Amino acid sequence: MIGALDIGGTKIALGLVSPDGRILGRGAVPTDPLAGFDAAMRRTVDLYQRLCAEAGARPEGLGIGCTGPIDPVSGVFGRVDTLPGWEGSNLKAALCLATGLDSRIENDADAHALGELVWGAGRDALRLIMITVGTGIGGGIILNGQVYRGLGGSHPELGHHTLEASGPLCVCGGRGCWEILAAGPHWESWFQHTYPECADWDGQRICAAADSGDPRARAAVEREGFYLGVGLANLINLYAPDAIVLGGGVMERFDLFIGRIQSEIQVRCSYIPYGQVRLERARLGVDAGLLGAAEVWKRRDCA
Amino acid sequence: MIGALDIGGTKIALGLVSPDGRILGRGAVPTDPLAGFDAAMRRTVDLYQRLCAEAGARPEGLGIGCTGPIDPVSGVFGRVDTLPGWEGSNLKAALCLATGLDSRIENDADAHALGELVWGAGRDALRLIMITVGTGIGGGIILNGQVYRGLGGSHPELGHHTLEASGPLCVCGGRGCWEILAAGPHWESWFQHTYPECADWDGQRICAAADSGDPRARAAVEREGFYLGVGLANLINLYAPDAIVLGGGVMERFDLFIGRIQSEIQVRCSYIPYGQVRLERARLGVDAGLLGAAEVWKRRDCA
Repeated sequence: MIGALDIGGTKIALGLVSPDGRILGRGAVPTDPLAGFDAAMRRTVDLYQRLCAEAGARPEGLGIGCTGPIDPVSGVFGRVDTLPGWEGSNLKAALCLATGLDSRIENDADAHALGELVWGAGRDALRLIMITVGTGIGGGIILNGQVYRGLGGSHPELGHHTLEASGPLCVCGGRGCWEILAAGPHWESWFQHTYPECADWDGQRICAAADSGDPRARAAVEREGFYLGVGLANLINLYAPDAIVLGGGVMERFDLFIGRIQSEIQVRCSYIPYGQVRLERARLGVDAGLLGAAEVWKRRDCA
Repeated sequence: MIGALDIGGTKIALGLVSPDGRILGRGAVPTDPLAGFDAAMRRTVDLYQRLCAEAGARPEGLGIGCTGPIDPVSGVFGRVDTLPGWEGSNLKAALCLATGLDSRIENDADAHALGELVWGAGRDALRLIMITVGTGIGGGIILNGQVYRGLGGSHPELGHHTLEASGPLCVCGGRGCWEILAAGPHWESWFQHTYPECADWDGQRICAAADSGDPRARAAVEREGFYLGVGLANLINLYAPDAIVLGGGVMERFDLFIGRIQSEIQVRCSYIPYGQVRLERARLGVDAGLLGAAEVWKRRDCA
């Protein structure tokens, strides 16, 4: 049995996962980052003790997908925008002290990608990219079954590559990043500014209105599909992957965007056999984090 | 001894290369693509016979870097814009028939990257990207010492990723590609249109004028450095490579552009340890093609 931990800015999910991918027990606690790292660890360890008691067993180790940057080897947090004040804390050491368990850590986007690779929509893809479009845009890359890492073990920042060189300023300091153009809140905010009479509409309401043929909502879907398509076309030109799996809140309405996404890919990727790239919606939903984290532990002996 | 062939749209270079990277004999013939594939092969084979006679020896095999798309396994040309009418011709079969030699083929950008990896500026880089900025923008990616290939063996199209989603129309069918914004001829053409009084200035003259402080030429250098920087920043966000090596005609004036390139990377790559990415000018010049092609042969047993 493997302990699987999915640490995000809002909640920390914990699961006990069998090696063949069944979730035998699960729970979640709020991250509440402002209350500090130590308090979040206490909540997590309490949940761990409860799940172990219910299962009548202890896991052999912990696999972790964690919002980053975090050093996967040492377990020390870097500057994480969504976890203010946690910089310098050691996740690996804290969990080992409290549970006696060894752990392996990956960026949460990479863990999600591993989950979809092994159990979900990315099965058997030699080159897989998993993109999550929600509050931000994040991604994980798997090449030949291994998480791709950049220099110094760094995690590529797919959401912060530029689509509009002189576009709007992003929180990362760049301009016209994919995330600032197409992540959920930025899309909603564009809509609310463009149509002030709809200043209280959220993404779900925009999508529902688009279903009913509202021209403003249709224009918003057009814009979102365009920028999603341009970003995905860039990934196809740069990686020529076998599969791209799309998850996150905005992709709940995959059906609404996929046509525009595909037409943009068709226009921009003529030198790549883009028709062979599988473009699929993520299949594991909330389980991707836990199953992916379990996979992180299972791969503990890989480079 | 290895036969090394570098096939571009303008000329075909042939060299005889020792396994330790010395070029023992060399020559070149015009590609003259409109005269047809067969005629180009005849010129190449004539040159091959002459070089072998001069050396008093025959190579063990042929390594080839070829402008593409070309299928590296079958040796059959796809639709190559710079080699009109060559589609469907079989390079590997033609050379084997005429010389009796087996051959291995890579895209020329990948061969150049291999040359710089083994003998030039990319030495020892675990993740190396070689970018050539000339008539177009092309690139090769080496991960863990192997040429990176996409699905179906396809070559990533780094020059055709989008920097300006609604930018100028590119020959590939996309808009605002890196190439259409920053390749040599497009840069010159932007300059000539912006400053009609300089309608006959080429890139070299623009650079010389920038050296003398001409404000129009300085603006052109600023613009070129900006778009080179945005494209390179995207590669850093997406690959976090150990090294990027820059070659091609425009990069002869690396010194003029590197400051602006670096400032753009600094602004756009804050989540990547960009300061550790080696950004260097290619060192092998015209030899990169031949040394890289020889390397293609030496790696013939790799996947």
